[in-house]
Amino acid sequence: MIVALAGGVGGARLAVGLADQLSARKLAIVVNTGDDFEHLGLTICPDLDTVTYTLAGIHNAATGYGRANETWSCMQTLSTLGAPTWFNLGDRDLGLHLTRTSALRAGERLSAITRKLTQALGIKHTILPMSDSPVRTMVKTRAGVLAFQDYFVRLRCKPRVEGFRFDGARRARVPAGLQALIESRQVHAVVVCPSNPYVSVAPMLAIAAIRRWLGTRAFPIVAVSPIIGGAAVKGPAAKMMRELGAEVSALGVARHYRELIDGFVIDHADAALAPDIEALGARVHVADTLMRDRTHSKRLAAEVIAFAHALRATRGR
Amino acid sequence: MIVALAGGVGGARLAVGLADQLSARKLAIVVNTGDDFEHLGLTICPDLDTVTYTLAGIHNAATGYGRANETWSCMQTLSTLGAPTWFNLGDRDLGLHLTRTSALRAGERLSAITRKLTQALGIKHTILPMSDSPVRTMVKTRAGVLAFQDYFVRLRCKPRVEGFRFDGARRARVPAGLQALIESRQVHAVVVCPSNPYVSVAPMLAIAAIRRWLGTRAFPIVAVSPIIGGAAVKGPAAKMMRELGAEVSALGVARHYRELIDGFVIDHADAALAPDIEALGARVHVADTLMRDRTHSKRLAAEVIAFAHALRATRGR
Repeated sequence: MIVALAGGVGGARLAVGLADQLSARKLAIVVNTGDDFEHLGLTICPDLDTVTYTLAGIHNAATGYGRANETWSCMQTLSTLGAPTWFNLGDRDLGLHLTRTSALRAGERLSAITRKLTQALGIKHTILPMSDSPVRTMVKTRAGVLAFQDYFVRLRCKPRVEGFRFDGARRARVPAGLQALIESRQVHAVVVCPSNPYVSVAPMLAIAAIRRWLGTRAFPIVAVSPIIGGAAVKGPAAKMMRELGAEVSALGVARHYRELIDGFVIDHADAALAPDIEALGARVHVADTLMRDRTHSKRLAAEVIAFAHALRATRGR
Repeated sequence: MIVALAGGVGGARLAVGLADQLSARKLAIVVNTGDDFEHLGLTICPDLDTVTYTLAGIHNAATGYGRANETWSCMQTLSTLGAPTWFNLGDRDLGLHLTRTSALRAGERLSAITRKLTQALGIKHTILPMSDSPVRTMVKTRAGVLAFQDYFVRLRCKPRVEGFRFDGARRARVPAGLQALIESRQVHAVVVCPSNPYVSVAPMLAIAAIRRWLGTRAFPIVAVSPIIGGAAVKGPAAKMMRELGAEVSALGVARHYRELIDGFVIDHADAALAPDIEALGARVHVADTLMRDRTHSKRLAAEVIAFAHALRATRGR
């Protein structure tokens, strides 16, 4: 059994590759919910949705959020009525938000709702929100502390980042399915997907049960660099690293994950950084990490799985 | 100043005719909110929306609910996800429900929200919900007491009706705009639109402030029959009358409104009933009451206004 920790687009791309390589019994995908938010009375879970839509094959590959073949009639009305339109809500997408929000209001747990929704969309693999209670990533900026979507979408990541806070992480209620995995000793490796280290992966690590689990693990942790050739494939990771004084490179990411990982997968473009990364104590695997389509994802996933198994063998477990 | 009391389709059709005849200062439309309900976390106000969309000229004339040129992407998702789909929610329509629901959650009053929404849709006339607090029409049937939309849409009016209850009517909070009209003495006539007497008009009359106002009025009340030639133009009015033991005819409606009205407008098809209706104490005006389009609406509205003025003159006020 492999557990993947995934954020949005990058996480979803590796997750779908892992799902193509591993049966439903051999993979669980834990997804960041720190960027969830309330908007127009709806509870929206952008990373859960990106992973879900990608695994269901109904995601919008062009924009990186929402669904393919989307219509925008509702947004047109919102605009006419002067309601906020800074967050794009496609009509098809809305059906999921409405269903989830009303289930949450009825007292169902996010993990149970996610199971129902993913099954209804034909997904066989387990997708687990990192928490059944709200965790909210707050971005500390020069302009003050901002809710993540305010920073990310409304302000287009413009404010200079000074740090992060994960409200609710300390008391997060880990889903029963994740707790069972933590206690199972069936997990052979954890894969940290190429997601933003600060706002996709860090919220998961901020959850006590997850941090404790990974800190006392008997399995290797492998991360895939979200930085290729000194740039983020998508999103504000590079900008954040720069603003926080980190080196914007796969090496910078490896330093960030230093205490966490046993193995680090970097792109061929960054092969020269391998010695410096290995000097940090992590083994390095060099691969083609830019996942342009599902075939790329599946190929990278195979390499990541093999790398993890090799590390496990090395650890002698 | 004329005040129209309107329910759904029939109400909206006369209301738009009245709006075409009278300036915004000379007409206020009070709308039933007894059929409002909560669905998928949204507060939906079907009659308010029908009147609003009709006055804005964006209603779906074919179905009698929702908007023209509608798309149904969200409903497709709801269906895929196993969410309830018995109530049709078009994508454009949803934009209004989301906007209203989030404004209600933020503590705004329904009347204030309605003013904003109608203005945003280019409507100059005042549309007032009958209440700013929830009033819920409950249908007493052999199958038990049903929430109105459960009876009306989900069960397609099948259960046999035994009576009605208007939960919240007694303590209803009349909107400030309606209270001002009640106290103004500027109202020269009230027009009861050809809406369902039991579930569109009765909820309005169940509100203490409205009942007291109409009971002590110094102006005539004119109703337009929703029954033409022994049948309802739309909806379950005829079926309800039958089940409640009333005669399914304009005369039956006149008997129902006996204590309320000074004048009754009936269709040419029912002209023979005029003597019996006048024997009840109401003056009768015979007109072409089937409003097939906006031109018909405007013409009927002109006759209703003239009839009301004539009754007012007769009363010597």
